[in-house]
Amino acid sequence: MRDFLPADVARREWVVAKIRDVYRRHGFLPLETPTMERLDVLTGKYGEEGQQLIFRVLKRRDNLPDLATVKNGPDELCDMALRYDLTVPLARVVAAYSSQLPKFFKRYQIQPVWRADRPQKGRFREFYQCDVDFVGTTSVLAEATVVQAVTEALLALGFDRFTVRMNDRRVLTGLMEASGIARELHGTTLVAIDKLDKVGVEGVRAELIERGLSEQSASTVLELVALSDAGLSDDELLTTLTARFESVSQTGVAGVQTLQQLLELLEPEAGAPRPWKIDPSLARGLSYYTGPIFEIAVEGLSGSMGGGGRYDELVGMFRGQTIPAVGFSLGLERILVVMEDRGMFPELGMAPDLVVVVPEASAQVAALRFAGQCRAAGLRTEVYPEPAKIGKQIQYAESLGAARVAILGSREARDGTVGIKQLASGEQVVVTWAHAIAQLTAPPSDTGP
Amino acid sequence: MRDFLPADVARREWVVAKIRDVYRRHGFLPLETPTMERLDVLTGKYGEEGQQLIFRVLKRRDNLPDLATVKNGPDELCDMALRYDLTVPLARVVAAYSSQLPKFFKRYQIQPVWRADRPQKGRFREFYQCDVDFVGTTSVLAEATVVQAVTEALLALGFDRFTVRMNDRRVLTGLMEASGIARELHGTTLVAIDKLDKVGVEGVRAELIERGLSEQSASTVLELVALSDAGLSDDELLTTLTARFESVSQTGVAGVQTLQQLLELLEPEAGAPRPWKIDPSLARGLSYYTGPIFEIAVEGLSGSMGGGGRYDELVGMFRGQTIPAVGFSLGLERILVVMEDRGMFPELGMAPDLVVVVPEASAQVAALRFAGQCRAAGLRTEVYPEPAKIGKQIQYAESLGAARVAILGSREARDGTVGIKQLASGEQVVVTWAHAIAQLTAPPSDTGP
Repeated sequence: MRDFLPADVARREWVVAKIRDVYRRHGFLPLETPTMERLDVLTGKYGEEGQQLIFRVLKRRDNLPDLATVKNGPDELCDMALRYDLTVPLARVVAAYSSQLPKFFKRYQIQPVWRADRPQKGRFREFYQCDVDFVGTTSVLAEATVVQAVTEALLALGFDRFTVRMNDRRVLTGLMEASGIARELHGTTLVAIDKLDKVGVEGVRAELIERGLSEQSASTVLELVALSDAGLSDDELLTTLTARFESVSQTGVAGVQTLQQLLELLEPEAGAPRPWKIDPSLARGLSYYTGPIFEIAVEGLSGSMGGGGRYDELVGMFRGQTIPAVGFSLGLERILVVMEDRGMFPELGMAPDLVVVVPEASAQVAALRFAGQCRAAGLRTEVYPEPAKIGKQIQYAESLGAARVAILGSREARDGTVGIKQLASGEQVVVTWAHAIAQLTAPPSDTGP
Repeated sequence: MRDFLPADVARREWVVAKIRDVYRRHGFLPLETPTMERLDVLTGKYGEEGQQLIFRVLKRRDNLPDLATVKNGPDELCDMALRYDLTVPLARVVAAYSSQLPKFFKRYQIQPVWRADRPQKGRFREFYQCDVDFVGTTSVLAEATVVQAVTEALLALGFDRFTVRMNDRRVLTGLMEASGIARELHGTTLVAIDKLDKVGVEGVRAELIERGLSEQSASTVLELVALSDAGLSDDELLTTLTARFESVSQTGVAGVQTLQQLLELLEPEAGAPRPWKIDPSLARGLSYYTGPIFEIAVEGLSGSMGGGGRYDELVGMFRGQTIPAVGFSLGLERILVVMEDRGMFPELGMAPDLVVVVPEASAQVAALRFAGQCRAAGLRTEVYPEPAKIGKQIQYAESLGAARVAILGSREARDGTVGIKQLASGEQVVVTWAHAIAQLTAPPSDTGP
C-alpha cells in the first residue's frame, strides 16, 4: 500500500477525470459502495484462491468471542471484509434497491479494492478499479456499450496500441464439446488452457493428459485454441468455429452468433480505430461469467489492463431472480504505470499562481487581505508564513514552481501597493493591488512570454 | 455503512469539488494515504476510547498464528487497521517523506475514515473528512490560513450562519492555574468541563468536586469558563482573561496573546463576514493539541461540523524531531445532512442529454454510430438496448429525466436522418444527423421557454 504525494494525486485525478467523463457521456451513472461488506456477501464469489485473498476485519470489541471458545477458525472473529471487487457489491445493490433504479441500470464505479496478496513488485494490496456495468438486459448492445466506453476511455487517455480481446464462455464450451471432452473435465481444461502463455503448447498438452483428457481430445482442443494465432480475420475465425461446432455444440454456435452480433454493432465508421479482436483462447478466471468475455492487451505490457464479461446469474444470487448484466473494469494502477513509463501525462500544474512574500510580520495582515482578493479572483495564492529575508522567501516560491511572487512589505501595505516580480526574468513592477490582480488574471497575450 | 446511489454521489461530488477548489486556491496540495495503516502507527494516538474504535484487520492467512497459541488478546491476530483520522497518517507521511515535501507543507486530504462505533442514528462507521493542514511553522499565520480556508469553503457551499469557536489549550491551562487547580487534576477537569452542554453547570460542579477539586477552585473555573456566555466582545474577553492570568499563569497569557494575534490576522475587510468567536469553554478531546483549537458550530445543528487545532508534537512522535503543524477538518456527512435538510443543493443534472429510441434491432448499428457522433460532440447519450415499442422506450427516457429522445428506425437509418422529439411539448422534427447534433449542442437561445 502506498502514499500518494501531491504529484501522484494530480496524475491519478487527471486519469480518473478522463475516464469518468467518457463513462458519463455514455450515460453511466455513479455508484459508491462501502469499503466493508458483510463477509458472507463476499464468500463463495471469487473461487478458492480469491477467497483466501479477502481482507477480513475483526469484530467490534463487544461482539468478539473469547478466543478460547472459537471452534471454526478465525472467520468466526470477523463479520466484515474489505471490498474485493466492484462487481459483487453492484450485484448486492441491484438486488437491494431495484425499485429505486432505472429499468436498465448503467453504472460506473471508481473505487479501491483490496486483496491480501503476498507483497511483490507491481502488485498492490490496495488498488483502484474503474468499472462500467450495464444491468437489466440480455441484448448484446449492452456488450457493445461497455466495450465502446472502455475503448473510448483508453483513447481519451492517449493509448493507441491496445487490443480488446473478445471471446465467449459458450465458445470455450464449444471448443471442448467439439474436442469430445466430457463436461466434468471442462473446468480443469480451462485452467490448463489459461496457462498457454506461461508453459507453452506442449506443457499444456502434458497437463491436459495428466488431468484425464485423451490424446485425441487434447490435440483437438489445442488445435482449435491455436486458431487465434492463425492469422485469420475475425469473420474467418467465427466462420471456421461455426463449421466445427455446427453438429456437435449448439452452445458453441450460440456463442459464435453473439460474437458476430457484437462485431456488427461495434463496426465503426470508416477510418475509425477498431481495436478489438476475437480470441478463442481467452478464458477469464472468474467463474461467474456466462457469455462474452473481454480482456485488454496493451503492446509491451504483460498481463491485462482490464477485463470483463457478461454475468447473468450473479445478481440472482442476491435476489432469487435472474437479472442479466455485463461489465468491464479498467485497472487504474496499470494505466498509471504504463502512462508514466511512456511519458503520456501532460504538464499538470500544481504550483501556486502567486506566493506573497512578506518581509516583516507587521505586513502580514495586509498580505492576507491581498491574498484573499487574489483568491476571490481565482488565483491560487499563498502567503509565506514567517518573517524571513526576501531571498529566502523567493527561494521557497521557486521550490513550489511559482512563476512570480508578490512582495508586500510595510511600505507597500501603507501605500496599498505590491511589488510583482517575475522569477524567470527578475523583472519587477510596483503597482496597486487592483492593477496587480487585473494583470495576473488577464488572459495570456499572444506576443510572447 | 451506506451505499451511495447516483443522486447521492452527485451531491457528494458537488460538495467535495467546492471544498477542494477553495482548499486549492489557498495553496493546499492533495495527499492520499492508504486505507490501512500499520496497527502500531495508530496505537496510542486517540485516547483510550478512540483506541477501542479502531477497526483491526486480520493478518493474511499464512501470517496468522494458531488461535490456541494467542496469549495477548486479538490484537496479536492483526497487523493492520483502518484509517481512523487523516491527521496521524499526515504526521507519518511528513516524517517519512520530509525531503520530498516543501519547507511548509500545506496539504488537503479528502478521504474516508472508519470508527467501530455502535450503530446509531446519524453516526456512520465510514465517513469522510475534508482536512487542511499547514505543516512546518509555529507562525499563527498558519492558524489564520486554515481558519480562512475552512470558512471560505463553508461560505462557498452556501452556509451563512455558522461560527468558528476558537480557544487555545494554553488558555484552558490558564483557567485552571488561575483557579488554583493542581496540574494532576487538569485532565480530569477538562473532561468534566467538556460536559457543560450535557449536564449543566451544577452537574459539572458536582463532578469536579467529586474528582477532587476544592469548592473554591470549582467555582472559580466555572466562573471563568462562563465568561464565554457573558456577552463580551472578543477583545473584552481576552483583556479580561489577561487580567486574571497575569500574575498566576504565564501559559495562559501566552495562549491569550496567540489568540489576539490570530484575531488580528483574521480581521477581514470592512463588510466581509467575520464568523469566528473566542470561546474559553471550548475544550476539544484529542490529547495531541498544543495551541489554538477550533470547532465549527452551525445554527440548529447539535454537535460540530468540524474542528481542529495546533499539534506541535505529533509529527515528532514519528521522527524524533519537533515539526509544528496546525490543521482543520470538516465532516462531509454533517455538511451533507444539513444541506439536504435545508435544501441548499442546486439542481444537479444526472439525466442524459439524449436517449436514442430504436424501434427495430436492424437499426441498432446506425443508432450506436449516431450516439457515438453525439458523444463526440459532448452530449451525454445513451441507446435503448432492446427492440421495444416506441412508447415504452420514451417512457424509459422520461424515467431518466431526459428532455428529448432521438428516434432512429430502419427508415431513418437508411436516409441518414433522425427524429428529435421534445418530451415536454411532444414537438418532433426529422432532420439529418449533422443538423440534429448542431441543434442539440447549440447554446440555448433567449427566446425559448
